[in-house]
Amino acid sequence: MSFEAAAVLYEMIYLDNAATTRPDEEAVGEALRFLREDFFNPSALYKESFAVHKRLDAARKNILSHVADPAQFELVFTSCGSEADNQALFSGARRGNFVTTEGEHAAIYQSAQELSRRGIDVRFAKLDRFGRADEADVLRLVDEKTSLVSVIHVNNETGAVNDVARLAAKVKEKNPRALFHADGVQAFGKIPFRLTKNIDFYSVSAHKIGGVRGAGALIRGKSKNLFPHIFGGGQENGLRSGTENTFAIMQFEAAAKKKFAALAADLERVRGYNLYFRENLDRELFAVISAEDASPYILSVSARGLRGEVLLHMLDDEGVLVGTGSACSSKNRYSRVILACGADEKTADGVLRISFSRENTIAECERAVRIINACAKNLAERTK
Amino acid sequence: MSFEAAAVLYEMIYLDNAATTRPDEEAVGEALRFLREDFFNPSALYKESFAVHKRLDAARKNILSHVADPAQFELVFTSCGSEADNQALFSGARRGNFVTTEGEHAAIYQSAQELSRRGIDVRFAKLDRFGRADEADVLRLVDEKTSLVSVIHVNNETGAVNDVARLAAKVKEKNPRALFHADGVQAFGKIPFRLTKNIDFYSVSAHKIGGVRGAGALIRGKSKNLFPHIFGGGQENGLRSGTENTFAIMQFEAAAKKKFAALAADLERVRGYNLYFRENLDRELFAVISAEDASPYILSVSARGLRGEVLLHMLDDEGVLVGTGSACSSKNRYSRVILACGADEKTADGVLRISFSRENTIAECERAVRIINACAKNLAERTK
Repeated sequence: MSFEAAAVLYEMIYLDNAATTRPDEEAVGEALRFLREDFFNPSALYKESFAVHKRLDAARKNILSHVADPAQFELVFTSCGSEADNQALFSGARRGNFVTTEGEHAAIYQSAQELSRRGIDVRFAKLDRFGRADEADVLRLVDEKTSLVSVIHVNNETGAVNDVARLAAKVKEKNPRALFHADGVQAFGKIPFRLTKNIDFYSVSAHKIGGVRGAGALIRGKSKNLFPHIFGGGQENGLRSGTENTFAIMQFEAAAKKKFAALAADLERVRGYNLYFRENLDRELFAVISAEDASPYILSVSARGLRGEVLLHMLDDEGVLVGTGSACSSKNRYSRVILACGADEKTADGVLRISFSRENTIAECERAVRIINACAKNLAERTK
Repeated sequence: MSFEAAAVLYEMIYLDNAATTRPDEEAVGEALRFLREDFFNPSALYKESFAVHKRLDAARKNILSHVADPAQFELVFTSCGSEADNQALFSGARRGNFVTTEGEHAAIYQSAQELSRRGIDVRFAKLDRFGRADEADVLRLVDEKTSLVSVIHVNNETGAVNDVARLAAKVKEKNPRALFHADGVQAFGKIPFRLTKNIDFYSVSAHKIGGVRGAGALIRGKSKNLFPHIFGGGQENGLRSGTENTFAIMQFEAAAKKKFAALAADLERVRGYNLYFRENLDRELFAVISAEDASPYILSVSARGLRGEVLLHMLDDEGVLVGTGSACSSKNRYSRVILACGADEKTADGVLRISFSRENTIAECERAVRIINACAKNLAERTK
């Protein structure tokens, strides 16, 4: 075997793109000038700052336009998706009750726990076995005292897609004054979607689609009441203070532009990868948790009876990087969300989350599946 | 005149370093690998992530060590100084009264307004004419119901230095249970200082010392009670959720290392620039607001009777970039802080904030002073 072939053989295969993506290098290149010549504070008064501020507002509009009509919606830059989620919840759920689901990202779930400590009546709707919100249960929990409803758009562990547009419409039928928020972090730039008038708030993040960390956003319907979560100099029209992170925002803009331009093609490609895994993972060892109509970017499987974390480390040694549930909840043995899908502890213990990006190749998938099957078989034999 | 000489003549002179500094290019270069090969989510479970997490903790300790003993203090990374200030206030001032000063940055001032709306008794201590907190007034406002005291270390508009170590000690004498916070954003990496045991919380920011935006920190005394401001995946020991911004943090670490290594030399150099301005600005036109013992990094002057904003634009046209008060409060005609120093509106209207960095040169200062004097004279003649 040539040296080159050996090198290729040992190249890392990154399949944890739902945790974070490698920043798009072209987009980094485009944005670097905001760390160099155009480093100015956008809130200063000289023309150099004003020019940066104008670019910032152009980026704001461009990012927003990918999923919403700028005549109907606005975009507030935050430091990350978690901050956007926190702002939506602590702003919107100040009275009465807050309705959410058992399938939310920790940024919603832990904020909900805090709301509960502050005296808000917090209500969790059930999931189906794929991690989808039970619509009837969400609607059952909504009443005239509901101030806010928050439902994740694409579940970050199973890829389950919630029809948030339909849910929001139904919530408004039951209580027109309730606000509706969706965490769109795993949907934005990945599945086709446009915001409808019933969705009041929508959280997105840069670093899940080739952006760098440091930029997220909360999109809101115009005239929808929103309070700041970080107070200070009044940046972002008074809704998020702190010197604007222009480098991260401009890089986000460039990465999003590229991702949305290729959204349909990427979706097809990633669907191929997902299908390849579904068809070629060893059925004796793996059960698929994700629904067939889940976002193809995320595939949750369980090597029931094996420890997912041990398997993850074996795969790591072979150069295949995957997750177990959410990276954010990696401190707990069992995923709260997977258990809420009705999985038993043995199934939950064996979960691997395989998540794709446009950067993956079918050759990588073929090799990864071979390695995953071999490692699981090896572990199963050792565990017997 | 040669083409090259003309180019040099028209080179921009950046004297708004208190608003933001140009990111240190070397530090950017060192950190870029966290956007490229080492882009992993530090909370994931594979060894590549664990390695990034270890580097993150090393950066945490290194940044902290510049101003405090890691055996006594801890550091929580935030997205910016404003977020650190918000976290300190909303965590510490949950009952009784909150004591602060009229000389605080907007991140403290506006958070204090919000605390007041939430029913906390907020008390503002007076300033002297240089923008220093009136110590006696701070202590007069502290009583047995005080939960938190917050005093800015170096005033961001006048450079006034508050002896926060002494103040904290006196506050604790009066009420040992009161927590003490200082906003150290304009002090960190600029003036010599180490945290003492009476200072419970201290906010810092990367982008004021050659760091990029996206990284700030709240330093806290070990065992001092702190609540999260952003809830979620439990990063930063549960105190600040959201995927860690490793690029910004590592670049912060490198920029801080450089800045602290040269702290004394830079201080001397910048003191020379500051003195040059004090001695050579036209005394017929300019009054110096900053105290002689203020941080030399910030020089506040007033062209009394002229509009500072008009002067700023004239200077901008000549390639000299300065601020008027804080960039964060650029929407208001008069600076709240300058008025609190006892300045009349005519003086407040004419304020320019000139702020230096190690990157400036004495040649730049000489040219800037000539241009500032000429522009002010020109404006004064036109305004007559």
